[in-house]
Amino acid sequence: MSAEFVELTATEAAGKIARGDISSEEYTRALIAQVDSIEDNVGAFQHLDRDHALAQAKERDAYRANGNALGPLHGVPVGIKDCIDTSDYPAENGSALFAGRRPYKDATVVTKLRAAGAVIFGKTVTTEFAFYHPGKTKNPHDLERTPGGSSSGSAASVAAGMLPLAIGTQTNGSIIRPAAFCGVFGMKPSHGLVSRAGVLSHSRTLDHVGPFARSLDDIGLILDAMAGYDENDPDTKPYAVPDFHSGVKQKVPLTPRLAYVRTPVWDKADKATAEAFEELAESLGEIVQRVELHAPIYGHAWDDLRAIMSADMAHSHGKIVGRGGDAASQTLRDFIADGRKVTAARYLEAISQAKQYTHALSDFFDHYDAILTPVSAGVAPKGLGATGDPAFCSLWTLTGLPAISLPLLQGEGGLPLGVQLVGPMGRDARLLRTAKWLLNHLAHDQEAEVA
Amino acid sequence: MSAEFVELTATEAAGKIARGDISSEEYTRALIAQVDSIEDNVGAFQHLDRDHALAQAKERDAYRANGNALGPLHGVPVGIKDCIDTSDYPAENGSALFAGRRPYKDATVVTKLRAAGAVIFGKTVTTEFAFYHPGKTKNPHDLERTPGGSSSGSAASVAAGMLPLAIGTQTNGSIIRPAAFCGVFGMKPSHGLVSRAGVLSHSRTLDHVGPFARSLDDIGLILDAMAGYDENDPDTKPYAVPDFHSGVKQKVPLTPRLAYVRTPVWDKADKATAEAFEELAESLGEIVQRVELHAPIYGHAWDDLRAIMSADMAHSHGKIVGRGGDAASQTLRDFIADGRKVTAARYLEAISQAKQYTHALSDFFDHYDAILTPVSAGVAPKGLGATGDPAFCSLWTLTGLPAISLPLLQGEGGLPLGVQLVGPMGRDARLLRTAKWLLNHLAHDQEAEVA
Repeated sequence: MSAEFVELTATEAAGKIARGDISSEEYTRALIAQVDSIEDNVGAFQHLDRDHALAQAKERDAYRANGNALGPLHGVPVGIKDCIDTSDYPAENGSALFAGRRPYKDATVVTKLRAAGAVIFGKTVTTEFAFYHPGKTKNPHDLERTPGGSSSGSAASVAAGMLPLAIGTQTNGSIIRPAAFCGVFGMKPSHGLVSRAGVLSHSRTLDHVGPFARSLDDIGLILDAMAGYDENDPDTKPYAVPDFHSGVKQKVPLTPRLAYVRTPVWDKADKATAEAFEELAESLGEIVQRVELHAPIYGHAWDDLRAIMSADMAHSHGKIVGRGGDAASQTLRDFIADGRKVTAARYLEAISQAKQYTHALSDFFDHYDAILTPVSAGVAPKGLGATGDPAFCSLWTLTGLPAISLPLLQGEGGLPLGVQLVGPMGRDARLLRTAKWLLNHLAHDQEAEVA
Repeated sequence: MSAEFVELTATEAAGKIARGDISSEEYTRALIAQVDSIEDNVGAFQHLDRDHALAQAKERDAYRANGNALGPLHGVPVGIKDCIDTSDYPAENGSALFAGRRPYKDATVVTKLRAAGAVIFGKTVTTEFAFYHPGKTKNPHDLERTPGGSSSGSAASVAAGMLPLAIGTQTNGSIIRPAAFCGVFGMKPSHGLVSRAGVLSHSRTLDHVGPFARSLDDIGLILDAMAGYDENDPDTKPYAVPDFHSGVKQKVPLTPRLAYVRTPVWDKADKATAEAFEELAESLGEIVQRVELHAPIYGHAWDDLRAIMSADMAHSHGKIVGRGGDAASQTLRDFIADGRKVTAARYLEAISQAKQYTHALSDFFDHYDAILTPVSAGVAPKGLGATGDPAFCSLWTLTGLPAISLPLLQGEGGLPLGVQLVGPMGRDARLLRTAKWLLNHLAHDQEAEVA
């Protein structure tokens, strides 16, 4: 019974709870049982109060029993990365420098999740300052491998069936990469779609908040609750947002066309990954065209992201890290030291360049529905001392375009290998629709081969 | 007849044109006659095509004769600072580096003025790059004195009766200071109220566009046409704006209370100015309270503005000025060289500080309707080699608060001495109402003294 609950998607679980087939309490207890059986190995949670999660679930059940109208996530537990504030748990940002920090209010995105009926289950492990230095989390597919970072615990908790949904953050590759390494769906929405108010701030230009799930429908379901205007995040816009959950299921008006883009960092891809992508592109036939992003134009994007991110982090965290001495990792201290050397002129040029890349790519989406590209150089690397290279994510973070990691391929040893789809700015619903079409198309192909 | 036209306010002229008492052509001819009689001395215009101005006026008259509904500025000539693009004149930014530059479209604010019926009369002189190095303009009150800068021609043309209205820009003190030196009304609206798209860009944080006029009602009249959302200026907001022209005339609900703020740069004020302000504050009695802005909190604001402005200008103009050699002034080259040295961390800290000043001052406006403070150290300085010190304007530009210069006082030799009123963020209509109340209050006092 418990095992069956663990396999439910969030959409299924929300449906069952709404219809009264199961209670939020039963569902939450089943997830806690899964945590009890596997968390000691995986280490996905930084803060977890089982009684508090159950108390919320019971309150949700009582609310339903009183005949109230229910939100789309009513009674569904969600994990929150520990660099995102909640009023009921600590938020320690993966660093001893924030040990015991207790926010007095929810981040906007958490407020929105609660308003949609979610149970705020627990706080998931982030790397130090949501940067590179790893936390305790291991990859559920192979406990000797990294789950990726910085949203390590969010990706691992969903992959291990401890939660149907979790949220994380990305300033370079911190949602898309762990999603791929852990074999789940992860989305970095368009810059400005989800509020960052109450989230550890690295960079106004680069910071994004996004979800993890085990189905694409679930990504749409939770994105509906997360997206929208917040006067406390100046990059969100006071416009209506589409219905993402319905959007996922919309029929495509035309057969999508995908651009297979290897990007100027293609040389980083290992042999198995390169072959898997070439094969995927081949198998999709006319749907896919190969497109090069020319290095003279796009080749500086990685330096531009580094200049912006290091300077913004020197500004945001320079004081506390400077005071913290050895309590901060050398990696973080070195990056902030580099950031202090960036001139304002270089910083402003990099931000201008980022806008130009976004602008140049906007024409691109007149011809293609989405870009098909790797998430990472390969499967989750061995060892727990590093979280992998975000290079295949950097350009899409810098440009603010929406990106999804789809657990479509298998690499070395049968480990998950993510496929990244990148869509036009602000067209997140269209990207979800294109991604769903691709999933269906590949499933049909396989059936055809079998038959 | 012509002389009578020259003394009309824009509100009066627009009324007469709308009623058919005068035509736009007659009015424009009268202004051209005034230009012919005085422009050789004042030098307010960079580009002026009399036939083009008359052609627009005739077109406006024909439009009215056809029974069309008229905009609020129908048939009224307006001067445009030469760092603001129009499709019908060059825009040379006061620099040989832009000689012969012909924009292919109007700045958003010019499009809006045309849509309100304005005649785009000509382009007014800006200092080099709208920075310090002066253009040819002289102060109409004393041809041996500076008109102030950088919106020198806009202020002087309105002061000399060559135009009823003109627009300029301010990144430090470039509207408020020349308005004061030339004895006219000038307004720097709240940051984000008027679009900067199509305007020479120094700094997204500091750049403002605002009007000059010979009455406060006229400031409201033209601000109605200038204000509002523009998707090409990311700091404008998609909200409705109030009716400023009506706002000016609104009765105040309570007797306003003003904070007389001498600011941390008070020592710069010359003796006559200091005395004039002490006297004004004294004469207003209980309406005014003296308030200190403490130097430990606000004293760094001037350095913060300089860091932001120099870094942003190094980014915006570093390349063209670097290539231009001697064609750029030493002042400009030195400032840009300083800007190149600013680190991104210092730049970002200064922007954070600016927000903190704005935030700290917002509480202030719970107690006071406006801040009463000098515009400048004194009357327009002698000599045409410099445009005066913007120090009394810097804090209000950095914080983005709306500010008006009122030609209320006289200084040395009977020359105009401006009084600056600063209002709460985004409450431009309220600031206009408070300013109007102050004008009326002082006029009544004088009448009372006379009687």
